[in-house]
Amino acid sequence: MNRLTGSDGAPALAILGPGSTRLVKELDRVFTGWGVTAGAEEISAPPLFPVTDLEKFDVYTNFPQLAWVAGSLDLTDDQFKPVDGRFGPGAVTEARYGLPHATCYGAYLFHEGNQVADDTLVTLVNRCFRNEDHYGGLRRLASFQMREIVAIGSFEHTQQVLARFTERIQAFAAALGVDLAKVPAGDPFFRNDNGRALLQKLSPVKYEFQYGDDLAIASVNTHRNFFGERCGIRLESGEHAYTSCVAFGLERWLAVLTEHFDGDLDAALTAVRAAADPS
Amino acid sequence: MNRLTGSDGAPALAILGPGSTRLVKELDRVFTGWGVTAGAEEISAPPLFPVTDLEKFDVYTNFPQLAWVAGSLDLTDDQFKPVDGRFGPGAVTEARYGLPHATCYGAYLFHEGNQVADDTLVTLVNRCFRNEDHYGGLRRLASFQMREIVAIGSFEHTQQVLARFTERIQAFAAALGVDLAKVPAGDPFFRNDNGRALLQKLSPVKYEFQYGDDLAIASVNTHRNFFGERCGIRLESGEHAYTSCVAFGLERWLAVLTEHFDGDLDAALTAVRAAADPS
Repeated sequence: MNRLTGSDGAPALAILGPGSTRLVKELDRVFTGWGVTAGAEEISAPPLFPVTDLEKFDVYTNFPQLAWVAGSLDLTDDQFKPVDGRFGPGAVTEARYGLPHATCYGAYLFHEGNQVADDTLVTLVNRCFRNEDHYGGLRRLASFQMREIVAIGSFEHTQQVLARFTERIQAFAAALGVDLAKVPAGDPFFRNDNGRALLQKLSPVKYEFQYGDDLAIASVNTHRNFFGERCGIRLESGEHAYTSCVAFGLERWLAVLTEHFDGDLDAALTAVRAAADPS
Repeated sequence: MNRLTGSDGAPALAILGPGSTRLVKELDRVFTGWGVTAGAEEISAPPLFPVTDLEKFDVYTNFPQLAWVAGSLDLTDDQFKPVDGRFGPGAVTEARYGLPHATCYGAYLFHEGNQVADDTLVTLVNRCFRNEDHYGGLRRLASFQMREIVAIGSFEHTQQVLARFTERIQAFAAALGVDLAKVPAGDPFFRNDNGRALLQKLSPVKYEFQYGDDLAIASVNTHRNFFGERCGIRLESGEHAYTSCVAFGLERWLAVLTEHFDGDLDAALTAVRAAADPS
């Protein structure tokens, strides 16, 4: 693995070598298979969205500090030549696109304006991007891969999906011999949404599956009808759809398995295959 | 397929539905298999690089107009609130990361400073990004997927790889009943590199495989020792490595096959499987 370095000296980006790539692809195959077996259709979204779409999800209100936006270069006055490895303010023209923090946005935008069945299930993987105040190699990257299984439909459906995959994640980790703690967490989506923020205090909307100190390698998330409303997704009843999602941070699984198997990626691969198919 | 719209009204981004996703994954599986069968190791790179790395490849000298750069938001003065779907100049702080135009950069950066065997072969897929003056759905997207097979080693090796995959691409297209023209093209990499620009006039360094009017869905590219020098990649002889690459624009293959099979994506999938494995 060859690591590129962020501003604070910690690796912000990682190019994965053959063994790591094989393991990440196998993990993604396993999680995708869980979704597809449960009835999910796989779709694929680009890692770039119009700012107007991300704005609908309160991204720039609730966590502007994490946001990366993409702009083109001002080609007048030679401004497009980087100085000390960076383009200064003013060298970048207006930014109309944003890079996503999370994969599931693509699922809501795919179904925007649609009427969906009460038990809709979608899976997709995407590159995600976060402007963090520090980086830490595979454990905290500026750009990483997140596979998600996204439920869209009745509230009951969204909860059943989370319950099913909570069990699945716990059983898979146990079969790998990896200790995961299920820990309730806050979801910054609802910071400025008073009704839902109150509900969040009453009943956690996010649980993380944490390894070691506090490394979240998967999470289950309930959004109630937030995305259904913002994207105008409706059920046959006419009600806005409820959504939930199960998320897997692929490089973080790689980090954990690399540590757990003492760097023996072939052993990790064999164990993942066995844990995924216990028969 | 649900399409998002660029500034000029043409679709700049596409979220692929289940049938399109299946076909793109199968195409990628086929091209990856060609690489692996020929001895390639698969690696994976993020779709974000430090500006300093892309600068090494003359990206900001040779095609600054195509570049997207990623910046974070200036959180003072409420500038981080987008206006009319865009962040104006000044709202974006300095940009230290660039989004790649092409996939093969990751291969050279992975091997940066390494000594490699004369017949090194690598394959990888990445999301690529281009700031075009117009978009056209799957045929010309702001963000798309490019699979590459990259040869690094002796000049003879780089040429043999291109010859082998030129045949492979032509045979695969013929088996699908898709007419492709092999057309010499200029490579903007060498625009400001006088020695190599002259060589390019004597002997084309890029051939595109074009469908219909002029849609390039694959290309073979010779870089001589440009990337080897820029990344300090050396052969056992001590010489800088030569490189070449074979590139596949996955959404463009999807566009061509969708048209060729009159929108019947299942038929296209069956044909791709048959063409990939004629036995």
